[in-house]
Amino acid sequence: MRNQIQSKIDDIYLRHLNNTAGSPASYIPELAKADPRSFAIVVTTIGGEVFSVGDSEVLFSMQSTSKPFTYGMALQDLGRVFIMSKVGVEPTGEAFNSIVELEKNTHKPYNPMINSGAIAISSFIKGSSFEDRLKNMIEFFSLFTEKKIHVDEKVFESEKNTAHRNRSIAHLLRHFGVIDGNIEDSLDLYFKQCSFSLNTIDLSLMAATLANNGVNPKTNNKALNQEYVGDILSLMFTCGMYDTSGKWAYSVGIPAKSGVSGAIFGVVPGELGIAVYSPSINEHGHSVRGIKVFQDLSRELNLSIFRK
Amino acid sequence: MRNQIQSKIDDIYLRHLNNTAGSPASYIPELAKADPRSFAIVVTTIGGEVFSVGDSEVLFSMQSTSKPFTYGMALQDLGRVFIMSKVGVEPTGEAFNSIVELEKNTHKPYNPMINSGAIAISSFIKGSSFEDRLKNMIEFFSLFTEKKIHVDEKVFESEKNTAHRNRSIAHLLRHFGVIDGNIEDSLDLYFKQCSFSLNTIDLSLMAATLANNGVNPKTNNKALNQEYVGDILSLMFTCGMYDTSGKWAYSVGIPAKSGVSGAIFGVVPGELGIAVYSPSINEHGHSVRGIKVFQDLSRELNLSIFRK
Amino acid sequence: MRNQIQSKIDDIYLRHLNNTAGSPASYIPELAKADPRSFAIVVTTIGGEVFSVGDSEVLFSMQSTSKPFTYGMALQDLGRVFIMSKVGVEPTGEAFNSIVELEKNTHKPYNPMINSGAIAISSFIKGSSFEDRLKNMIEFFSLFTEKKIHVDEKVFESEKNTAHRNRSIAHLLRHFGVIDGNIEDSLDLYFKQCSFSLNTIDLSLMAATLANNGVNPKTNNKALNQEYVGDILSLMFTCGMYDTSGKWAYSVGIPAKSGVSGAIFGVVPGELGIAVYSPSINEHGHSVRGIKVFQDLSRELNLSIFRK
Amino acid sequence: MRNQIQSKIDDIYLRHLNNTAGSPASYIPELAKADPRSFAIVVTTIGGEVFSVGDSEVLFSMQSTSKPFTYGMALQDLGRVFIMSKVGVEPTGEAFNSIVELEKNTHKPYNPMINSGAIAISSFIKGSSFEDRLKNMIEFFSLFTEKKIHVDEKVFESEKNTAHRNRSIAHLLRHFGVIDGNIEDSLDLYFKQCSFSLNTIDLSLMAATLANNGVNPKTNNKALNQEYVGDILSLMFTCGMYDTSGKWAYSVGIPAKSGVSGAIFGVVPGELGIAVYSPSINEHGHSVRGIKVFQDLSRELNLSIFRK
Repeated sequence: MRNQIQSKIDDIYLRHLNNTAGSPASYIPELAKADPRSFAIVVTTIGGEVFSVGDSEVLFSMQSTSKPFTYGMALQDLGRVFIMSKVGVEPTGEAFNSIVELEKNTHKPYNPMINSGAIAISSFIKGSSFEDRLKNMIEFFSLFTEKKIHVDEKVFESEKNTAHRNRSIAHLLRHFGVIDGNIEDSLDLYFKQCSFSLNTIDLSLMAATLANNGVNPKTNNKALNQEYVGDILSLMFTCGMYDTSGKWAYSVGIPAKSGVSGAIFGVVPGELGIAVYSPSINEHGHSVRGIKVFQDLSRELNLSIFRK
Repeated sequence: MRNQIQSKIDDIYLRHLNNTAGSPASYIPELAKADPRSFAIVVTTIGGEVFSVGDSEVLFSMQSTSKPFTYGMALQDLGRVFIMSKVGVEPTGEAFNSIVELEKNTHKPYNPMINSGAIAISSFIKGSSFEDRLKNMIEFFSLFTEKKIHVDEKVFESEKNTAHRNRSIAHLLRHFGVIDGNIEDSLDLYFKQCSFSLNTIDLSLMAATLANNGVNPKTNNKALNQEYVGDILSLMFTCGMYDTSGKWAYSVGIPAKSGVSGAIFGVVPGELGIAVYSPSINEHGHSVRGIKVFQDLSRELNLSIFRK
Repeated sequence: MRNQIQSKIDDIYLRHLNNTAGSPASYIPELAKADPRSFAIVVTTIGGEVFSVGDSEVLFSMQSTSKPFTYGMALQDLGRVFIMSKVGVEPTGEAFNSIVELEKNTHKPYNPMINSGAIAISSFIKGSSFEDRLKNMIEFFSLFTEKKIHVDEKVFESEKNTAHRNRSIAHLLRHFGVIDGNIEDSLDLYFKQCSFSLNTIDLSLMAATLANNGVNPKTNNKALNQEYVGDILSLMFTCGMYDTSGKWAYSVGIPAKSGVSGAIFGVVPGELGIAVYSPSINEHGHSVRGIKVFQDLSRELNLSIFRK
Repeated sequence: MRNQIQSKIDDIYLRHLNNTAGSPASYIPELAKADPRSFAIVVTTIGGEVFSVGDSEVLFSMQSTSKPFTYGMALQDLGRVFIMSKVGVEPTGEAFNSIVELEKNTHKPYNPMINSGAIAISSFIKGSSFEDRLKNMIEFFSLFTEKKIHVDEKVFESEKNTAHRNRSIAHLLRHFGVIDGNIEDSLDLYFKQCSFSLNTIDLSLMAATLANNGVNPKTNNKALNQEYVGDILSLMFTCGMYDTSGKWAYSVGIPAKSGVSGAIFGVVPGELGIAVYSPSINEHGHSVRGIKVFQDLSRELNLSIFRK
């Protein structure tokens, strides 16, 4: 299988290398600066083997690919009962940054993969101070990698300064009693998490850690209690690709999460972690080449969860 | 495993036997007559073994449990390109009978598991006449069972006479150009399919046929091309339980479909077909005891798609 | 004032004669055949004086300009309590043919000026048979004119055959229990009323009858009990121009109603009835030249209800 | 008429004195402290005569009764073209504090009478600093009264501290580019305006100033250019009572505006200004006794705009 994976990703890499559709996210100025030519595919097995092609060491910010991990952290710290009382687990049919559903329906976020849910989840991360909460979050995320995660402060500042809609969402969450405490701190924590900087190899290892029931295949650290891994994968599967989650399930069939920085990671439970980076995104906020790679890889390596 | 499954379903059957929550669907008079005490659990393996407990031979109408099969028939007859151009594959966040999404958004049904999508799909079933179209549909469904499916005409009449909302949906589909031709015929075909009568053993075999890549484990008939089985399972997983699909994925993790008659079937790919019947339903239209059985069975036999 | 009105409408007529923006309604084939050059302005005083310019004898179908009159008929026949229990009096913020509000909110039509409300109102018109109900409606409408109203059967047929959305609305009204009885009869009655054929002089007299507290200034027939005239004018004012009612109140300030055939009539209580006909409509379904004429006339003759 | 008005309001006052339905607004703690027994009716003619009954000197905060005046101030300062480009003039069909419409539809507020529109309008008020902007606003408002308006700082603080939803709205307005600059300053200005403190006599005089084409009947100050008075009255008529504006037009027929402090004022153009104060409000945010008084007064003194 080793040779098969490497030759497959080499092949798929070349197939899509010249696809220049989409463009880097423009609403956060710092993201707009990404080099649209960057392109990397990395697969990590639960045994710790790494297959890689392209610009796999180029750094990018996690953006929404951070959401499943913070969700796992919150579940582990606060328990399912509390978290489920605050944030639902249903797909929404609306875009990732929608406010409508929050107002019209249950007055709680539909799920932790959309911004409203993720902002709420970040607000629940514990610590004695803002710095302490951030430190705890960085430590948690770093369990999934081989190195300490750091924050890209330029992205953080850029994000913070253009976050009118997220700020609006946070105040509405506060209004409905979903979140409490200092709104600006919670937003900052969310922006910090979105600004966690890593490369495609790192993200692939984070995915492999989920594929390996929460144990980091490289460090053998237990990053997350096994019981919460299924919660995360289930939510990634039904909600991870926002209002294209259904199409993703249909055409890829792998629990996955995308970020507007152009990263997508996917988890084949008990087998592989996969990460793709290519900053040009489509109107749903997904990496254009990332989608193509996952579709091809799933079909050609028979990775869909619904295969026999 | 044989003994394990039988003792497990016996155990779960007794556990929920006295749960009297919910009540039979009231909006279709004929369904309201169901005996709320009826309760059956049947598991069929892809090898054709059947494990059964309770009233497994009590007949009921398929209602929405028919939707995945008609969808498969339409895919096989008309191809993915046409079907995808007419009916989406996204979860909606709204109830099964919602019109709102249809008007507000894409002007095509979100997916084939909600009524608008299913009515459209039925309208595409081919034949030289209404009778011929119905005959074709019955023949297709019967490939998944051991006996010829028949229509419960009382349920059909009851359904047809109270179908104001479905009729409204059909005319709006016609307005948006999703469907064409004789609206009443298409609605009648849809109501016929909802009125297909079978028992829990039959439904379990239909599920096992999907688990077995489209080949009926009892008759060895090829009921559906393998390539469309994944399409169906994917849609059942993300949309099969309507606006509780996310919670179902989270707590059960098995592609499944429910009907307001009180039936739910689930598919464990490459392993099992499961069907539960108990007519008392909750406010989302799902069998109350059916949900409990699937939650317990999935957890205790480790059936979630996200288990290693 | 006599000379002033005539010279004013002559002047405004010429001013807008060459405005060719918009086009005749296309979704009802028979309406699409209207001559876009047709243009008429007629003002009738409560004393029965008529001022007219342009093609004031060209026939057109009433379409939605019929709605306020049917509403008055239903109020007079069935009383405010019943009618208010079935159809609201609030503006909606949505288009005239919206279904969304009906499903999402109160499950009763927002007001009798949008299609859902008007279809409901037509369904309440009494009679021993469909023919009798139609006869009663024609007689009622004819009280507002000098001649017997007749139905343009070509328009009726055209309307009936393309009415998928209205049919959808009617079935949803039936589902929510707003209307009852034979849906097709109620729809037919609604389409008949929309197909009532008259010219701009007639419509201006109908408006003048409302301006004259329900008494026809030409025949002195009491067409409508005075107590219901205010109800109608109030609804025309807040809802008569659909989702542009606010802008109309702002820029014209006269209770008015438009129809997709290109007619608009307005009522200056205690003074004038005004009708304009010009078949090219805008995206809201209002006559393009009709709007211009009313804006100019209101400003230049100081007709807004908010003038001192 | 003098005797008639006084005896009429005395009569109506007694009729509703013991109506204890509703309760003071609870979501702003300071408003919850209002004495629910307070009740006042004041009518001021355009000749400056004042008819009063009840607690007409009890102070209250203007809340949303301030919105029409700030709208007039913005129109006068910035012109119709700019203001209309930022805030619409359509009724919404949604509650006063809705966010949904803002996101779903035009991305600009439907009208200046709902919170989103009013917050935008306040943000446009000019001045060299926050203090200067507030000073300008106070001076403008004071032109409509006989004394200088002051701010109830306790209400302001209470409002500011519980304004999560309004803060959410403001950030969404910022996101859509409706407003700019310092969000907190704009919100503070809006909260200050809502906290303007006056009594029922004052508010009645403000109404009479609008009835008198913008000239204060007591001081003869020109408070507002005549050309903008109609704009305000038109918006009060179609949107002033939020999602009950249609019913208000129907049953009262007078341009009016209510505030959650329990005040309602109405304008009979060319005749009267009317103000009622009674702090117990209903679920729409309108004074319960205020509505009753206006309904009776309109019917019994024949004040509806649709009377002949």
